[in-house]
Amino acid sequence: MADAAAAPWSMTLTAVCAELASGRLSAVELAGSVLDRIEETEPRVHAYECVMGESLLAEAERADAELAESGPRGPLHGVPIAIKDVFDVAGVPTTCSSPSRRDLVATEDAEVVKRLRAAGALVCGKTVTHEFAFGVESPPTRSPWNLGCIPGGSSGGSGAAVAVGSCIAAIGTDTGCSIRLPSAICGIAGLKPTYGRVSNRGMVPLSWSCDHVGPMGKTVEDCATILQHTAGPDPADPSSVMREVPDFLAALDRDAAGLRIGVPRNGFFQPGDEEVERLVREAIATLEAQGAEVLEVDVPHIDLGLPVAFVIALAEAASYHRPWLAERGGAYGAQVRTLLEAGSLALGANYVDAQRVRALIKRSVQRTFEDNRLDLLATPTAAAIAPPAGQPVIELGDAPPQPVMLALARNLAPFDLTGQPAMSVPCGFSHGQPVGLQLVGRPFDEATVLRAAHAYEAVTPWHREQPQLAAPGASAAA
Amino acid sequence: MADAAAAPWSMTLTAVCAELASGRLSAVELAGSVLDRIEETEPRVHAYECVMGESLLAEAERADAELAESGPRGPLHGVPIAIKDVFDVAGVPTTCSSPSRRDLVATEDAEVVKRLRAAGALVCGKTVTHEFAFGVESPPTRSPWNLGCIPGGSSGGSGAAVAVGSCIAAIGTDTGCSIRLPSAICGIAGLKPTYGRVSNRGMVPLSWSCDHVGPMGKTVEDCATILQHTAGPDPADPSSVMREVPDFLAALDRDAAGLRIGVPRNGFFQPGDEEVERLVREAIATLEAQGAEVLEVDVPHIDLGLPVAFVIALAEAASYHRPWLAERGGAYGAQVRTLLEAGSLALGANYVDAQRVRALIKRSVQRTFEDNRLDLLATPTAAAIAPPAGQPVIELGDAPPQPVMLALARNLAPFDLTGQPAMSVPCGFSHGQPVGLQLVGRPFDEATVLRAAHAYEAVTPWHREQPQLAAPGASAAA
Repeated sequence: MADAAAAPWSMTLTAVCAELASGRLSAVELAGSVLDRIEETEPRVHAYECVMGESLLAEAERADAELAESGPRGPLHGVPIAIKDVFDVAGVPTTCSSPSRRDLVATEDAEVVKRLRAAGALVCGKTVTHEFAFGVESPPTRSPWNLGCIPGGSSGGSGAAVAVGSCIAAIGTDTGCSIRLPSAICGIAGLKPTYGRVSNRGMVPLSWSCDHVGPMGKTVEDCATILQHTAGPDPADPSSVMREVPDFLAALDRDAAGLRIGVPRNGFFQPGDEEVERLVREAIATLEAQGAEVLEVDVPHIDLGLPVAFVIALAEAASYHRPWLAERGGAYGAQVRTLLEAGSLALGANYVDAQRVRALIKRSVQRTFEDNRLDLLATPTAAAIAPPAGQPVIELGDAPPQPVMLALARNLAPFDLTGQPAMSVPCGFSHGQPVGLQLVGRPFDEATVLRAAHAYEAVTPWHREQPQLAAPGASAAA
Repeated sequence: MADAAAAPWSMTLTAVCAELASGRLSAVELAGSVLDRIEETEPRVHAYECVMGESLLAEAERADAELAESGPRGPLHGVPIAIKDVFDVAGVPTTCSSPSRRDLVATEDAEVVKRLRAAGALVCGKTVTHEFAFGVESPPTRSPWNLGCIPGGSSGGSGAAVAVGSCIAAIGTDTGCSIRLPSAICGIAGLKPTYGRVSNRGMVPLSWSCDHVGPMGKTVEDCATILQHTAGPDPADPSSVMREVPDFLAALDRDAAGLRIGVPRNGFFQPGDEEVERLVREAIATLEAQGAEVLEVDVPHIDLGLPVAFVIALAEAASYHRPWLAERGGAYGAQVRTLLEAGSLALGANYVDAQRVRALIKRSVQRTFEDNRLDLLATPTAAAIAPPAGQPVIELGDAPPQPVMLALARNLAPFDLTGQPAMSVPCGFSHGQPVGLQLVGRPFDEATVLRAAHAYEAVTPWHREQPQLAAPGASAAA
């Protein structure tokens, strides 16, 4: 491998912006570096559904010319960002990694892409998702840390691309786990903002009441920067919340002193990987050492989160897909088609039952925050590490083997139901694979989530580790 | 009829509270007067499911003793209030006017009843509702203004009881129209507060995401007083909103000067009774004469409100009733059982479709308020007057005959979907029957709704009219 430290593709978004702004790096050089890295890594990682090499280089040339003529368009001027292939990008299909959509070329950018472009960003390509974002595996993408394992999902392509540097940062979506899980497994930072904070207009929905759009980056600061330029009211999106956007970067100046952090007694750590538990508790102790107050809390009903999220997503996905299934169901993958057909049989009363339990969970988490005056909850992002691709269950200690979805998403789906902001940040390695610390904040308080995640990252080395794209069975140092 | 002006039953809540506080009237005298009035009116009006005469007199005796010993328990000390029979009142069944529930005796008061009692109020009985609140007719109750006509629904018993003075004020619920419609038809004031403002714990739900609990009174001030003592957070009710309660009575000091009132161009007036339209426009002109700014506005998508509310209510009611239908479905009335069985077949995807359109309507109304900087919308409560009982359709001008539910609820259901506060206040008579002006406010701004309604009421005579309980065919003066 080339000298990674010096290559533009290996830099953080923050560093790249500084290089571009100073003129030490051109947009064309950066685009070329990222495209070289894509060429180098794609055969092993398969993060992209569609690499937009030609248009990226053309856009980069225009960006350099524009910079010389009239200065930067915005703080992201010339930075290649990868977009999960559920968002429309004008001129290429929005495939949702489904064979059923390879012919559906978008004519307009999704709102989040428009906002990135308005800040100067370039689009380097569309990343792989689990078909229609309805799963945690994202084939054919593989974890850069162990090419025999899944990268997590459904934003698995975005996670792997950020981790290997085949983009500078990426956009993902999170309906039940899908930003935080691949962020944890791929060893990067990923933030699910509050529901309604970032517009989802121009995105193919999975579950309209649970879909969240958010950033995935090499560092917490990179996520904060992307959020800053994509968040905010979109009057044309009915789920968008009309709420002003604070200065997320300013929040990063402070450490964790004075924050009250709850650690759930129930449900989040076990059944789980013992080393994951140890690393996450160590991470929490690191925040405590900075002056955070850490207390154990109960979060009643949280174990209902994943099943409830499943019923809701099934019915909502069925609502969206009904006409499509009728027209081109034969081109859907078997797993997702089965889920959607199951969802289309769910009764309204079942869905309502699930929404009633959702209200209970929401109130329960709210009370946990209020009664304990919490700023944050801290948990493992996933209680297990990534399993080998194709393995249907995960074994955790003495517990019966659990379906992969249950084992990996159970700590995450509850906060898609509550709509709170939640972030995964790397906190070590178990069996050579990255482990994530999840920090969950109060609604619309992404600033505190980012602040604590950044405070942790600043005193730990994990975000600087580079995956070696090792084949299964090869040693970690290969 | 006795000299109504002097009888305690005929007084407003405000007047009764002053009489009780001054000692000129005892709780026992008041209870006796109300019970006499119940005896006089019930054979014609049928407003009560259950008159709690004995317990009312016993409570009144205790109230008088308590007053003498330790002063008033609260501002409603000794005032008999009627409770729609969907709320639990300890010791009597919560029948929901359904034969299926005559044996279900409540062991604890509903939260709203507890709060009324804490303010000193007494419960005089449980009022008739359309079975399980699922309709607009409320048989066997009849309109006090025309005993051949329906009183509206589903809080028809509460509406009729307030109108004839067989209680001092009442509690109703509004899921699609059910406080405002009987208030308009019975010629009284009724307020649907913001969703979540008043706890619905201890109430049999119709549609959990649309159910609102609110006051029905002889005057706007009476409604404000009841709201004051029943509103506010209930941590044990998942739909309750944790929001402080302002001083609603203080809001009544001001007239309508400076308020911006939108009058919808589309959907609310026609098809409708011409005289209703004239009266409502006259009422709006009265507010304008006080200095309100009146402007015509469009409210896109509002016509989808009633069908969407219906799909949502069908599925949500089916969720609640499923176990009950299995156990005692034979004891349900045929109409409601049919609706519930239809609801139990609705697919989750249908329900989700309806919720997506609901989000569209919510955003549309919000934008109408924002773009026009509105404080209020003003519309007819219902575009038609009450039809004869048993008549399935209403004819309005040249339009095809409309089902009664559609004709009467179409102006009301949209605001159960949006959750905004909305009130009906009497604004005249068409064909001898009362007409209501609906005022709709911003979320949690009941104060402005009450203020404008009170400002209108203060300069008009309609709330002082007394129904003559005339049999069908008799002249209005009989």
